[in-house]
Amino acid sequence: MISVISLRFILGHIVLGLALLMIAPCMLAWYLHTADLKAFLTSEVITLGTGLLLVLAKRPGAPQLRAREIFLLTTTSWLTICVLGALPFIFSHTVSNFTDAVFESVSGVTTTGATVLTGIDQLPRDILLWRSMMQWIGGLGIVALGAAVLPYLRIGGMRLFKAESSDFSEKALPHTRRILLQLLLVYAAISTACAISYLLAGMSLFDAINHAMTTVSTGGYSTHSKSFAYFQSAGVETVAIVFMLIAAVPFMLYIRMYSGNIRELFHDTQVHSMLVAYFFIAVILVLWLAVTGDVDVIDSFREAVFSVVSIGTTTGFVSEDYATWGTFAVIVFFFLTFVGGCSGSTSGGIKIFRFKIATVMFAETIKRLLHPNVVVARTIQGRPLTDEIMASVMAFSLAFAFTVCTAAILMAAAGNDFVTSFSAAATATANVGPGIGSNIGPTSDFSALSQPSKWILCVAMLLVRLEIFTVVALLTPAFWRN
Amino acid sequence: MISVISLRFILGHIVLGLALLMIAPCMLAWYLHTADLKAFLTSEVITLGTGLLLVLAKRPGAPQLRAREIFLLTTTSWLTICVLGALPFIFSHTVSNFTDAVFESVSGVTTTGATVLTGIDQLPRDILLWRSMMQWIGGLGIVALGAAVLPYLRIGGMRLFKAESSDFSEKALPHTRRILLQLLLVYAAISTACAISYLLAGMSLFDAINHAMTTVSTGGYSTHSKSFAYFQSAGVETVAIVFMLIAAVPFMLYIRMYSGNIRELFHDTQVHSMLVAYFFIAVILVLWLAVTGDVDVIDSFREAVFSVVSIGTTTGFVSEDYATWGTFAVIVFFFLTFVGGCSGSTSGGIKIFRFKIATVMFAETIKRLLHPNVVVARTIQGRPLTDEIMASVMAFSLAFAFTVCTAAILMAAAGNDFVTSFSAAATATANVGPGIGSNIGPTSDFSALSQPSKWILCVAMLLVRLEIFTVVALLTPAFWRN
Repeated sequence: MISVISLRFILGHIVLGLALLMIAPCMLAWYLHTADLKAFLTSEVITLGTGLLLVLAKRPGAPQLRAREIFLLTTTSWLTICVLGALPFIFSHTVSNFTDAVFESVSGVTTTGATVLTGIDQLPRDILLWRSMMQWIGGLGIVALGAAVLPYLRIGGMRLFKAESSDFSEKALPHTRRILLQLLLVYAAISTACAISYLLAGMSLFDAINHAMTTVSTGGYSTHSKSFAYFQSAGVETVAIVFMLIAAVPFMLYIRMYSGNIRELFHDTQVHSMLVAYFFIAVILVLWLAVTGDVDVIDSFREAVFSVVSIGTTTGFVSEDYATWGTFAVIVFFFLTFVGGCSGSTSGGIKIFRFKIATVMFAETIKRLLHPNVVVARTIQGRPLTDEIMASVMAFSLAFAFTVCTAAILMAAAGNDFVTSFSAAATATANVGPGIGSNIGPTSDFSALSQPSKWILCVAMLLVRLEIFTVVALLTPAFWRN
Repeated sequence: MISVISLRFILGHIVLGLALLMIAPCMLAWYLHTADLKAFLTSEVITLGTGLLLVLAKRPGAPQLRAREIFLLTTTSWLTICVLGALPFIFSHTVSNFTDAVFESVSGVTTTGATVLTGIDQLPRDILLWRSMMQWIGGLGIVALGAAVLPYLRIGGMRLFKAESSDFSEKALPHTRRILLQLLLVYAAISTACAISYLLAGMSLFDAINHAMTTVSTGGYSTHSKSFAYFQSAGVETVAIVFMLIAAVPFMLYIRMYSGNIRELFHDTQVHSMLVAYFFIAVILVLWLAVTGDVDVIDSFREAVFSVVSIGTTTGFVSEDYATWGTFAVIVFFFLTFVGGCSGSTSGGIKIFRFKIATVMFAETIKRLLHPNVVVARTIQGRPLTDEIMASVMAFSLAFAFTVCTAAILMAAAGNDFVTSFSAAATATANVGPGIGSNIGPTSDFSALSQPSKWILCVAMLLVRLEIFTVVALLTPAFWRN
């Protein structure tokens, strides 16, 4: 039996947290005397009311959280935040229909960053702030999920990152609570540091706060239609590069760093591989730009690094239209879409550690070819790579590929062209943001897509943000059987 | 130490086999009094001479074939056949340059079926026959490799198909020789049956022989520019569907069937999954065609099945331009490109059994999510799925994806557009044939591509036809160390 009471109780607290955060845009709307104050207050009342109803209905004895409750909680909490988060867009008439409101909200909470809003610079500041906050909330959620929940479930090989001698039992609950609190503090501290850095680099206070929230969450919403191209500032771009990278590192490493274990950060194979991969791809792009065009090497190196880090970490900021760099660059960015950052960070995509595991298998296969009877110790960063982890990485890869294919096919059925269908499916599934092609490319937005197209992408964004299996588990009959 | 003498000796016999087969187009050229007789005789002399030189130089005591010799033999024999097979194209001036000759030859021997020849209906019949024979030879080669060699090496999970109690030792050599002979007989018998069926369905003798060779090898070369659209015959298309499917089944099953084990063919999970997958995709396409257009359901069902089987089995025959069926169909065919047939058949692609293994992992992951402590028996068709097989399937998948990505990026660097780069890389890597888009689509050919583009595709075709690792092994320093 699923413990509905525990579920409702925790979900209620999450919704109350959302209501608490929604006070910020309310106050901004009040302070700026914008027309949206009523819209935000209505949303606040609904959110607060929902939260209170869930919390107060019936208090559970001791909260029960087994695998099933966690699965259900994960999906329902993300869905609830997406729906409640869409309310301000609807009530303020920022968008003309329900679909657009949900798309903007889902793209925000999943930290994808694909937008259906046009003329962003002219939008009221409270709405802009709320968009950025949605990403910040989604980023925090995914860090919490990745660090405290997923390793205990057997999903996508993330058991690899399970802390020693810990289990998701009631006994471990205080421990989990402490970890979650530490993560919140680290996340807030990095966000603050990012905002201050943007300020120092020349951004306005409002821009700095917003971009800090969408940088640390690797979300990619901007307060300007031109994204980072608006600023035309090497300093601002450098700050963004540094903090996108910081956000793509497993947040647990920062907690351990705080406990004095600084070396671990620099010896982590995931972090190491990620930096090497991004650097390598950026160098190739710069060489390409240097060979094919008349460019300033230092400038183009910064632009290349910015774009590679932005797409690689699945943030999706745009400082220059790389679609004009030629098909070579476009196809490199297309494949980069899938890569992603480290597991346990805010970034999406397939993630570096899964490539790392496949690479270990690749090296092992080569070794076995020549020395058939060799005994291979299958480890990654000193941890044993069990066949269970291999199986779940393989299962995740299949599920990821299947999601991209299905989304692309459905997008085509909804009337989109080949490139749009394919790249929208890819960028949504990997939670990146900009796609390629004339419709949804780096300097465009998703507003021109049809309503069915937007719903297809919403499902893809949510599914993969929740590591697919937390959702798929709910769809099995076994889940609901007693 | 690599036993060069054994290697040369066996390679010599393979080249002599090629010289023997080359007599056929020589005789046709002589019979038809075409201008190519001299070209074929020159090619024949060079091939025969090469073979004799290799065989007669020094006879080894007992042929030594360990893993290293097999790797080297595999790559060198494919390369040698590609080069010698290109000679008639060069000497007859069918093509204007060396690149085109090699491309046509590589595309033939790898049973890809992408062509650079235009106005195929006007070409001399001896040249057409030689093209078809190249595919037939390539198909035979891959069946031999898949049934008798690859399962003994630890490549791409094909160890799963290793026959019981057999090892690739000298003791097993007579056994292997017997298997290879049986495969040759089965392959020839199926080819003959296919040719007779085409004849009965209304093809001319010449067309029947040529298409039988390119059907059974899942190659896809045709004697007409319009491919199967030339015939406009439901009977011919039905024969093609049946024999493409027969060619995509593991040929070892036919040998076992001949030994009385008929049930195995119908109980093989690979065959079963392949048929279900193709049928399912064909039904979806028919539904799509029925909903979106005014079509005859029976006709369109046959066309859909033909196209799905043709692309799925990596043959690449075209009976109708599915590019006109809309983006939905195009994107379905694009993904279908990767699927492939069964392991141990003549077809290419990722192959059904690898998807099957990933699906087993998927089901296991779901099961583990809900029952964390469940003990899962990891089997496929009664055979244990060892972690070694899982590791090599994962390694192959990574290598395959990496090949497609690299080929696509290089194609873009060579100046091709996004769709052409991507789909050429896909269709070459999966050994299918036709791509998508206006340049290399189902009704077009590869003649317009630049020379560097053609070389990129040649490497991709060969690499994946040889299951990647047989070639990659040669590139490791460890291979050449003593």
